[in-house]
Amino acid sequence: MAHRPGRLRILLVTGNRNKAREIEEILAESFPGAFEVEISGDIEKLEIQSEDLAEIALIALRSVLKKIDRGKWDSVVVEDSGLFIEALKGFPGPYSSYVLRKIGLEGILKLMEGESNRRACYRAAVAYTIDNETRVAEGEVCGVIAEKPRGSRGFGYDPIFIPEGYGETFAQLGEGLKNRISHRAIAIRKAAQDLLSSIKRQ
Amino acid sequence: MAHRPGRLRILLVTGNRNKAREIEEILAESFPGAFEVEISGDIEKLEIQSEDLAEIALIALRSVLKKIDRGKWDSVVVEDSGLFIEALKGFPGPYSSYVLRKIGLEGILKLMEGESNRRACYRAAVAYTIDNETRVAEGEVCGVIAEKPRGSRGFGYDPIFIPEGYGETFAQLGEGLKNRISHRAIAIRKAAQDLLSSIKRQ
Repeated sequence: MAHRPGRLRILLVTGNRNKAREIEEILAESFPGAFEVEISGDIEKLEIQSEDLAEIALIALRSVLKKIDRGKWDSVVVEDSGLFIEALKGFPGPYSSYVLRKIGLEGILKLMEGESNRRACYRAAVAYTIDNETRVAEGEVCGVIAEKPRGSRGFGYDPIFIPEGYGETFAQLGEGLKNRISHRAIAIRKAAQDLLSSIKRQ
Repeated sequence: MAHRPGRLRILLVTGNRNKAREIEEILAESFPGAFEVEISGDIEKLEIQSEDLAEIALIALRSVLKKIDRGKWDSVVVEDSGLFIEALKGFPGPYSSYVLRKIGLEGILKLMEGESNRRACYRAAVAYTIDNETRVAEGEVCGVIAEKPRGSRGFGYDPIFIPEGYGETFAQLGEGLKNRISHRAIAIRKAAQDLLSSIKRQ
């Protein structure tokens, strides 16, 4: 699409279409007309092994910056996220997508069998550039792990994650609600607000 | 220790004392008097997220080479390993030590409850330098996951791994046997043989 003057141009680097769609929707709903988002799924990111999402996202962002001409965008953005289950000492954490591919929701529910502490938090770290700086914004939403999968919307662990204050999973509640209260929404809105205020000041 | 002429000097970069001890024992038993091993647990390695142990080990080795004066040793060595369980699509694989810290042997056994296919393979990748080159040697030992932990020797998943052809776990069989047939022994011996023949030819 052609660039509309006044809109900030974002390059979002992710191979995950669900994540990309959520981020686009969050930005469009919270900051209508403020951002133009270009998605790149082709740029290979360096993903390190770490228990710190912010560190993973920052190093991934820096690896992307070495491969592109960042001057074409107002900000380059990378996101990393995970589900941290208290009774499992934070597992699957930063390896959430790997673990989901391997053992599935069934595997997580099996590990949680007979476990009375079902508390878990979804966390996201959004690494982004402002001029020559790299920054990170983080978001978290806590809740409990359901006894069985429910609902068909969302992705990842959404069918077994019930956010605090609700009686249904993210997969039952749907995108509208998820994109208002999720870890990803919180992190993205912080980053977006920082971008808007930093770039306005210039 | 003072360098004895004729011995090849190896710098082994690992923060895992169990791994270091096994590698020293394997080299001492298979190639007596051929190597002098120095262990460094302080050099921070870059560990990427990947399902390919060889790639993880090679990139870790290259990150180490940027931080040291490699001319002081005949070879710099890094090892990565993991347990790949067939019924769990290769889980925990490259994330074996993270997964063990988080869910323990009990977690793995819970995931395997009611699973008739108990086949698993331990794999190792040894990345090493020869002059200005980096190479990788790999090793594998397959077997089955025990119904419950048995034995107290070894480390990691040894109490639940029964190698093919044996009725006991690595933790019951002990280092002597483990260091003859293990994934790590196979990979290290390949690398050591390559080093000895390459350096003899010079």
